[in-house]
Order: sequence, then structure tokens, then C-alpha cells
Amino acid sequence: MGFVSVLSFAHQLISVRTQPGDTVVDATLGNGVDALFLAKLVGSRGHVYGFDIQQHALDQTEMRLRKELPDASSFVRMSLCSHEHMETVVPAERHGRVAAVTFNLGYLPGADQQTITKQESTLPALEAALRLLRKGGIVTIVLYSGHDGGSQEAAAVEDWARDLPLAAFQVLRYQIANASRQAPYLLAVEKR
Amino acid sequence: MGFVSVLSFAHQLISVRTQPGDTVVDATLGNGVDALFLAKLVGSRGHVYGFDIQQHALDQTEMRLRKELPDASSFVRMSLCSHEHMETVVPAERHGRVAAVTFNLGYLPGADQQTITKQESTLPALEAALRLLRKGGIVTIVLYSGHDGGSQEAAAVEDWARDLPLAAFQVLRYQIANASRQAPYLLAVEKR
Repeated sequence: MGFVSVLSFAHQLISVRTQPGDTVVDATLGNGVDALFLAKLVGSRGHVYGFDIQQHALDQTEMRLRKELPDASSFVRMSLCSHEHMETVVPAERHGRVAAVTFNLGYLPGADQQTITKQESTLPALEAALRLLRKGGIVTIVLYSGHDGGSQEAAAVEDWARDLPLAAFQVLRYQIANASRQAPYLLAVEKR
Repeated sequence: MGFVSVLSFAHQLISVRTQPGDTVVDATLGNGVDALFLAKLVGSRGHVYGFDIQQHALDQTEMRLRKELPDASSFVRMSLCSHEHMETVVPAERHGRVAAVTFNLGYLPGADQQTITKQESTLPALEAALRLLRKGGIVTIVLYSGHDGGSQEAAAVEDWARDLPLAAFQVLRYQIANASRQAPYLLAVEKR
């Protein structure tokens, strides 16, 4: 049957920790797959905040949502800015109450491969995500190390995750261990 | 809620790939936890073959089975020999038909800590396990790198697993990434 894919496994981890009405964040909208998944999970009583620095990503996500979840525009808010700034967009009364934050690092498939996430903004964004989380909430990070700059970013995220104190956070790695360097893998951080 | 433990996750992977009546192997009986789990899964129409080089492990397993699964003695066969020799114990007609093989490396808790699994026998045993597997079958390997000799064995198993051809096997790593070096982690190999 094969093992559950990295993306599906991340979604499973989120599903069991998130309920309708919750607040969630897609830190890297990309082609909108995570945003659609999150929007379906929390529903119209919930709140989805999405971020990307490329207008193309917001356009793709909006198309996907309009097609598959027509009422999404009422509870999904997309921002054309770096995920570093997520705390200024998510309202203060929801800080510490976020159920899940998704990161899909690397570059946007089909777009400019020079535009990649970089550790200089990724690490502050991850720190912001942890501050937003509620107890029991989860940050999922899908990492790619195959592209130029990818292995440096992945190594920086690995170091960051490994140093998170076990008393406050639990970090899970889920990875196909004999795959090519192009294959994504998952780190997930649960706030205790 | 915390992430599913390494041992529970290994059991989940086995559960969805194993049915009553199947043949399975516990390559490292230890305190008998895996053997009991496997025996419950395959039931009295199935076959469980268990191995350990310490009589104490066979005794512990037998006590556990007798207490929790009184009819286990009719379909669980335990051998006091190295798991390298599993192909000589599992009948030839079941070679290539085994659903799952479990390895729990390191030393037996509560027993002599000088008696540890070592790569010289672990690697041939893993190769034997892959030959016994049916298509879709799984080998689970719980690794410890905290004890003397543990990190060398873990590194050797890692290298072996990483080199398995993706066309024939898929290797999954499931690991708490910010745990202490004493914490176990999982490699699972599925035969394609």
C-alpha cells in the first residue's frame, strides 16, 4: 500500500487537533492546497489566515477556493506579505488560540524558482507561529532540500527544531528515508 | 495530545498490513510485547516465529503470552537462537509470504546490558527478514543509540536502509526529533 505521503500525514496530524470554528494559518499559500484543506476543516465559523509574497500564489489559492468552497471568501483572509508578519495580521484576541499553522518551504511550483523561502524569514516566522499556537496546537513544516538554497534552509530549520525544549514542544520527523534528495519530508511541532 | 509513540506507530503500520491467519516474525523477543501484539493480530490460524539469544527473554515472553493469550502456545514458536537464522526456522513454504517482522534493537531491559544486538548479526538478520517478506509486507526496526555500541549499530542500520532501492522497498523514518539520545526511533521498510 505504500506509506502515507508526507503531505497526507501532515494533514492527518492537523485533522485530529483541529475542530470547526478554530483559527488556523497557512504560512505559505503556494498553490492553495493547504488553505483549502484548512478551510474545509474549520468551516465558515472558523478563521483561516493565509500568507504569500507572490501575487500568483494568492491568485491560485483564490481560484482553488472559489471552485471547491464557494463561501470560503467569508472566512479565509489572504495577505500579500511575508509570513514573518503573521502576528500583525492575526487579531490579538486569537493569539495563543491558533490550532494549526502550515509551512510548505522551497519555491512555488510553476513560478519563478529564484523566489524561495529563506531561513532569514522562515525562522522568525516559525517562532511567530509557535507564539500563536494554543496548547495542543501544531505547526507542520514540509521541507525540501533538493533546490539551490534548500539544503541550507532545511539544515537551519532542523537545528532550530532540535533545540526546542522537550518540556514545551514535541517535534516529530516523518520522512521517506531512502527517497531522493528532491523528496519533501515533514517536521511537526506540537505545543505542550 | 502528544504524537503517537514510536512503538504504537510501528504497531499501527503493522496492523493495517496484517490479517488473521498471516505469518509474522518477532526477531527480538525481549520482554514479549511485540510477540503478544503479533499473536493477537494473526490469531490461532496464523503463525508467529520469535527469536532471542537470551533464555530470559523467552521466559518473559512465555509468561506474558500465557497470561494474556492462553492458546498462544499452539501457534507461537520461540527459538533460542540468533535472528540471523530465521530463514532456517520459518518453513520454506512460508518464505516470501511473511506479513511483518519486528526488530527492537539494543539490550533487554532488566537483563545484562552487555548483551546487545550488534550490526554483525543485525544486518544479516534484516536482509533475511526482507527475503521472507511478501509484497506489501513490512519490517519495523526500533533503534536506540544511547547505550554503548548503540550509535554504531544505529548508524550501520541507517546506512543499510538508506541504500535500499526505492523501486523495491520504501523506508520510513518516524522519530521524535528533539528527544534525548536515549529515546528510541523507528525505521520501517515496506516491500513493494
